[in-house]
Amino acid sequence: MNLIEETIAAIAPLDEAAMRDARDHQARLTKPPGSLGVLEELSVRLAGLAGRCPPPLPEPAAVAVFAADHGVHAQGVSPWPQEVTAQMVANFLAGGAVVNAFAAQVGAEVSVVDIGVAADLEAAPGLLQRKIAPGTADMTLGPAMTADEARRAVATGIEVARDLVTSGARCLITGDMGIANTTASAALIAAFTGRPPEQVTGRGTGIDDATHARKVEIVRTALARHGLPDEAAAPLDVLAAVGGLEHAAIAGFVLGAAALRVPVVLDGVIAGAAALAAAALSPDAIGACAAGHRSAEPGHAAALTALGLRPLVDLELRLGEGTGALLALPLVQGSVRVLHEVATFDSAGVSEKDARPRN
Amino acid sequence: MNLIEETIAAIAPLDEAAMRDARDHQARLTKPPGSLGVLEELSVRLAGLAGRCPPPLPEPAAVAVFAADHGVHAQGVSPWPQEVTAQMVANFLAGGAVVNAFAAQVGAEVSVVDIGVAADLEAAPGLLQRKIAPGTADMTLGPAMTADEARRAVATGIEVARDLVTSGARCLITGDMGIANTTASAALIAAFTGRPPEQVTGRGTGIDDATHARKVEIVRTALARHGLPDEAAAPLDVLAAVGGLEHAAIAGFVLGAAALRVPVVLDGVIAGAAALAAAALSPDAIGACAAGHRSAEPGHAAALTALGLRPLVDLELRLGEGTGALLALPLVQGSVRVLHEVATFDSAGVSEKDARPRN
Repeated sequence: MNLIEETIAAIAPLDEAAMRDARDHQARLTKPPGSLGVLEELSVRLAGLAGRCPPPLPEPAAVAVFAADHGVHAQGVSPWPQEVTAQMVANFLAGGAVVNAFAAQVGAEVSVVDIGVAADLEAAPGLLQRKIAPGTADMTLGPAMTADEARRAVATGIEVARDLVTSGARCLITGDMGIANTTASAALIAAFTGRPPEQVTGRGTGIDDATHARKVEIVRTALARHGLPDEAAAPLDVLAAVGGLEHAAIAGFVLGAAALRVPVVLDGVIAGAAALAAAALSPDAIGACAAGHRSAEPGHAAALTALGLRPLVDLELRLGEGTGALLALPLVQGSVRVLHEVATFDSAGVSEKDARPRN
Repeated sequence: MNLIEETIAAIAPLDEAAMRDARDHQARLTKPPGSLGVLEELSVRLAGLAGRCPPPLPEPAAVAVFAADHGVHAQGVSPWPQEVTAQMVANFLAGGAVVNAFAAQVGAEVSVVDIGVAADLEAAPGLLQRKIAPGTADMTLGPAMTADEARRAVATGIEVARDLVTSGARCLITGDMGIANTTASAALIAAFTGRPPEQVTGRGTGIDDATHARKVEIVRTALARHGLPDEAAAPLDVLAAVGGLEHAAIAGFVLGAAALRVPVVLDGVIAGAAALAAAALSPDAIGACAAGHRSAEPGHAAALTALGLRPLVDLELRLGEGTGALLALPLVQGSVRVLHEVATFDSAGVSEKDARPRN
């Protein structure tokens, strides 16, 4: 087997016994039953992922920002010049971007992965030079990637996840950078969910009505060009047809995290599209995922619905880079910390609901 | 003037010039304009509160958990025995509650204020012994507090805010503990917003249909007993009639924070009800507030709507103690950190939207 197949074979369902233990433990803690809402179920899932209760605290965290360019940029889907991808990579490496500020706040390490930037990047601390190609081809004219490129990008994402966990990370965070990558995301989400392009194509970094209308038509054209959606299509072929190199790598990153039973916090619409590809390759991989946030992109909501994930933060963010997931990290960590640190009714001598007053 | 009047006199509107500076600065940062959604406007408000851009980072934070008992507990509005208030105070002081776990995660100090627990509490590190009365009286039979008790509780909240800021806190967080305090919250929210009791009375820590129906009727009875809502009623008289000692103290805590121009993150429905009282005393006080979260209590949503505050976290939490606000703290801090640490397009050499490619 190759790395992708080995990784998929290593992914297992959540551990039911550990989840039962976590539910039982939550009920004994000094708080009204269910009063931590969505965070209680999240803690139960993380126990199931770890296979024990309490699960390990998901820290330290590491964010991998997968950067790539997109051939479809030539179709005029974004008001930003393509060179901004490489410029922002330099900004990440210099510590000047929002992802750096939010990562510093939660003590997360930032790695930038050049998986397909259309420029030669000089070696630098924090930069992983794993370029598969200098950007994808234009998906409206042919496949964005060859089948081999798509496989290599997925395998690279698996390797990055494995290396970060080997280095000590106990929670992985997806990040991305790539001018025009919301266009590829929309195409992937339409292909994997069957929703029409106009429902899943958003305004990305901010485009006017005319550009948005063109973007919808370009997604429609690309899908038609490749005969998508097609339920019989192999997930890797869908990625190769209309995806980005960073989507393929993030799909691998999710698979890698799931195989290692380490939680992965998904950022925005790019991660959502990539997670749909990961789920198509291995449905159990989504057990490792927490949805960090719901962005302003309509395709992101569609992806999260299809994945069955409820977002932790919902503040109309649409920046990418991993920023929304980093803001959600304390919520993920807090859900687990409760299982480690909070006293039980018995241990704290607190009366339970419906108890008679003690005399 | 007394302390309450002095404090109200010291509260000013948000500084418009600082808010303009913050909006201008946000537009120059290396991210698409508006891409941090709700957090951008929050950072602008915090600049307005501080009167400069960037405003100081809102750290370290300190949470004050105001604990009190409620005479209306005798009406059977809660399945929990009243002694749980004092038992949970002991749990907070021992570090075993969820508020302790979440505070530890964000490095916030926890102070527990006995503003009205119906038990004698022994002195302990972290406990502020500021008891005004051993719980309120039953609001269905008469005023919950005397006018003097209400004023002293508000003044105590102001003092606690001042003392925490003097000790170095740069962000205050509201917390509360008090069996039956969602009943008093519902009465306050109905009184201040004019909404009918059935719209603002929830299930608190978890009650059955019959208890909920009784709780709604008790709120209705109490309001009728005191002729509320009454737009002409003085806010302190409303607090005295149907509030809790912790509501009065938290209202003071909000006023104190606003007077010192230090942000205060509101927790759940108890804080929402108290903030309505603070707003009635000084509408500008709400400029200092961030709504940490929206709880599962229907009255909380009504209070936030009336206050014009958008919650940062919305995860069906209904625990109180300050837990929801502590989870939101990194979002508040992140919004300000962006103004301090993120590079501008110019400084980072990143092309702007609609720029032509550089050659």
